[in-house]
Amino acid sequence: MTQLTELVERHSAVLSVAAAANRSREFYAHWPEAPSGKIYGETANADGTAEFEGYLNKFFDGLNQEGASGRCGNEVSPYGFSLGITYPAFDADTLVQRAKTAQNSWRKLSPDERAAVLLECLERAAKHFFTIGYATMHTTGQGFVMAFQASGPHAFDRALEAVATALAAQKEFAGQVEWKKPMGKTEIVLDKRFHIVPRGINLTIGCSTFPLWNSFPGIFASLATGNASIAKTHPGAILPVAICIASFRRTIGELGLNPDIIQLAADNADAPVTWDFVLHKDIALIDYTGGSAFGEELERKIAGTHKMLYTEKAGVNCVILDSTENLDAALDNLAFGVSLYSGQMCTAPQNIFIPKNGVTTPEGLVTPEDTAKKFAEKIDSLIFNEKIGPGTLGAVQNEVTANRVVAAASIGKTIRESAPTVQAGFGNARTASPLVIMLDEKQNDVYEREWFGPISFIIPVDSFDAAVEKTAVIARSHGALSGAVYTVEAEKKDKAEDILIQAGVPVSFNFTGPIWANQSAAFSDFHGTGINPAGSASFADYRFVATRFAIVGSRSK
Amino acid sequence: MTQLTELVERHSAVLSVAAAANRSREFYAHWPEAPSGKIYGETANADGTAEFEGYLNKFFDGLNQEGASGRCGNEVSPYGFSLGITYPAFDADTLVQRAKTAQNSWRKLSPDERAAVLLECLERAAKHFFTIGYATMHTTGQGFVMAFQASGPHAFDRALEAVATALAAQKEFAGQVEWKKPMGKTEIVLDKRFHIVPRGINLTIGCSTFPLWNSFPGIFASLATGNASIAKTHPGAILPVAICIASFRRTIGELGLNPDIIQLAADNADAPVTWDFVLHKDIALIDYTGGSAFGEELERKIAGTHKMLYTEKAGVNCVILDSTENLDAALDNLAFGVSLYSGQMCTAPQNIFIPKNGVTTPEGLVTPEDTAKKFAEKIDSLIFNEKIGPGTLGAVQNEVTANRVVAAASIGKTIRESAPTVQAGFGNARTASPLVIMLDEKQNDVYEREWFGPISFIIPVDSFDAAVEKTAVIARSHGALSGAVYTVEAEKKDKAEDILIQAGVPVSFNFTGPIWANQSAAFSDFHGTGINPAGSASFADYRFVATRFAIVGSRSK
Repeated sequence: MTQLTELVERHSAVLSVAAAANRSREFYAHWPEAPSGKIYGETANADGTAEFEGYLNKFFDGLNQEGASGRCGNEVSPYGFSLGITYPAFDADTLVQRAKTAQNSWRKLSPDERAAVLLECLERAAKHFFTIGYATMHTTGQGFVMAFQASGPHAFDRALEAVATALAAQKEFAGQVEWKKPMGKTEIVLDKRFHIVPRGINLTIGCSTFPLWNSFPGIFASLATGNASIAKTHPGAILPVAICIASFRRTIGELGLNPDIIQLAADNADAPVTWDFVLHKDIALIDYTGGSAFGEELERKIAGTHKMLYTEKAGVNCVILDSTENLDAALDNLAFGVSLYSGQMCTAPQNIFIPKNGVTTPEGLVTPEDTAKKFAEKIDSLIFNEKIGPGTLGAVQNEVTANRVVAAASIGKTIRESAPTVQAGFGNARTASPLVIMLDEKQNDVYEREWFGPISFIIPVDSFDAAVEKTAVIARSHGALSGAVYTVEAEKKDKAEDILIQAGVPVSFNFTGPIWANQSAAFSDFHGTGINPAGSASFADYRFVATRFAIVGSRSK
Repeated sequence: MTQLTELVERHSAVLSVAAAANRSREFYAHWPEAPSGKIYGETANADGTAEFEGYLNKFFDGLNQEGASGRCGNEVSPYGFSLGITYPAFDADTLVQRAKTAQNSWRKLSPDERAAVLLECLERAAKHFFTIGYATMHTTGQGFVMAFQASGPHAFDRALEAVATALAAQKEFAGQVEWKKPMGKTEIVLDKRFHIVPRGINLTIGCSTFPLWNSFPGIFASLATGNASIAKTHPGAILPVAICIASFRRTIGELGLNPDIIQLAADNADAPVTWDFVLHKDIALIDYTGGSAFGEELERKIAGTHKMLYTEKAGVNCVILDSTENLDAALDNLAFGVSLYSGQMCTAPQNIFIPKNGVTTPEGLVTPEDTAKKFAEKIDSLIFNEKIGPGTLGAVQNEVTANRVVAAASIGKTIRESAPTVQAGFGNARTASPLVIMLDEKQNDVYEREWFGPISFIIPVDSFDAAVEKTAVIARSHGALSGAVYTVEAEKKDKAEDILIQAGVPVSFNFTGPIWANQSAAFSDFHGTGINPAGSASFADYRFVATRFAIVGSRSK
């Protein structure tokens, strides 16, 4: 038995279970989400800390990508210190030519073989979850538990989801058939073969807030379908990607394959190389996560080039608070939603629409003003809880976001002021607690924009219907990646569901307790819908995977 | 039982068989391809003739599309007479608004219901196959048997293929699940629903040579996934589409649904309305078949608009004649390939590469010159066979094509001259028998272009490898929709297969007898590969169907 055959057998059960979960959308997680010593080994945390610290203030030499044109890297932890790590820098053409060479043998593996190799890459890299967690914490600013989950088990599950979906897509049609066409008393017999042909080299352009979670689907969907991939990291969040790619390349090399199917392209913010890659003629698939302005520039520049583009840009996410059986539970839930990672999730709620005459509760109508006051109290009690507050908030990744919070403070009636928060042991952390502003319905020039960061608006509106209509209009014109509706009326729920799904808004109803509208679970929740300006990608539907390869037939007599 | 439920039950067996054929790629045809009275009824031909003649020199009033802004239509049969039919003309906005209204109820049907309604539309329209055949013959110029097959059973099978594939794609993931996430001793339970959301209104822009075969996949894939569709016909080939759409609309109306999910948009060549539709903000999906120049203009004009575009433009199809066990059989096959419908198929061979030292046969090497001479003889014996010649050739759809044949006559050494042919009963038919020219390998500026029509080139080249390389280069830069290779050497075959499939060329090896590289069979051959400049569409892979809808989730506690 060859090494690849053995690998296919070893991983087939997990791939089948993942594929079944994809189909049924039932809960499934291959990697447990708790950063627990009981699961990952009692020394895992200490080992991960040491491994992370071992990378600091050094050249990152684990990639085994030769022929660098120079060095780059100046990441700074949002918790207040420079990582001091440098990485090899490369010309676009160097990496693209290597990717082409590697792809030419990678494409010849069967889809099952590719899936097995990729799962082996994930399994081996998963041994470094704690390291990846600390690397993510100190590039994105996420609290450690979130960083562990988002870049560890959740990102890896999204990768597995993409691999399983891509594998299923490649097996939808038979690879070979003896085709027999009856012709009266005789028949024509043809030996037909159907070849999976990758579209070309993938470029995945990462973001600074979710460097793995948002990049792995594009990378793994591309690899699984026979393409090589180049990961262009955000200059602010290279390390978590570098650790994973170094591990993947070691695994691929040890399996006797060309590791250049996956390469790292790092750069500095003041000397960006992204366009060199984007515009390279052999880059055929581009996955992008990040701001809308760059995303739209990308769309314009590749227009007419036949490059395929999958985007997750920004959205303006809305909440409609109409009626609830438990206003405290609803506001607790929303308070967590706006506080988690200081609102730096693309799915974080921004606009909270409340009927002017109040939220209907078992205790009667609660005015927008009273609801807003209670909301601020809920945020306070969450973030000033020493046990869970700091880890929930984390730090602010980017100076621009911190400045935005300051700028937003004066645009309406302040319900809750933003202030620095304590991150024990990190006196220089860049922090900002949630700012809550009440806006007038007429200030749509303000709330129809995205205010990325810990900024949310409470907006009294005429009616439930008006709130639904506004949410749909905003989604259609500015995008949305999540939506939340609180209503106890079945008719209103049905109406909101019908209108919002048409606008491409994945909508959560009446969420309370430990589940939030911000969250999107691999194998069950499609992330992004691809039908509003928030982006064209949906993790991981058939559009996301089946557009990365062609099926080309050959027929022989 | 409701009418729709009954329809779903009645059609489920055929849809299952079609889906199974799609998966296995085995031979399948729902509608028999022989225009035989034994199959379609002894009076079918006479009835179809009468029905066709009944349309001539009148206003086409069967569409039941009210509110026309005027009339259009000046189709002329390539067999030499004006059809004299006028059609209602419409403003783009009128049809688009109606499509939006109709789509809003159509999308609410289940995928199974939509598929059943569409199959019912096809079954009822299939009663008019002979009429559709004559309408196709007298707009495209195809011989009757070919017109019957291409616009009847073959087009309808492509439609059924698209419906079955679209249905499968919509059912890949569960529509609903009770999601249970374990949380220590408790669990979170969510009711999740996954909604199929159509992307918007489809516009299918048809061509003059295959008005149904090339348009049905886009129309039916769009309809099956919940979109409404508007068929923008080529001004030269309206009638076959009008007959079908009139029938579809009657069927849909009789089922109690809004027929505006499918509408006809006709125009005249001197007052085209295509851009009004293409650029309308509510047109989201565009299917296009036709020349490369217009196709590229389409790509440029919609760049950055988020409209999805599926194209089948032109290609330069190559044949490599290296070695064969039976040169006569190979050349008979190729002679039919270049003669069928006077070379007006997007899959017709154009360039025939032959090694300079000759074709290897059991009788020894046959020089390019001798091969060319024999090829011309094979064409003669086919087209001068009174029984099958005229029907094989048909007439030339377009004056531009006829002029191209004249222009091509002097660009190399003439092997076989083109001349008018006899079409009994049609003294004014526009005809041209196949022109065969021998070119020098260096005349690549000539043979790297498409010469649409009955024009083929014999090009002696240095070697088999050179021929394969040229074929791949031409496909990558100018597109290809078919390719044919004759070789008895397994190693050469494998090499050609590997190189050509990478260039997106569906390749046929050693075809002899009644099967031709031009042909593409529904349920088995993907038509178009989407990875060379010949076009982005592939009938009907998952890319073709799964990009027409989104899946949007809703989650409730």
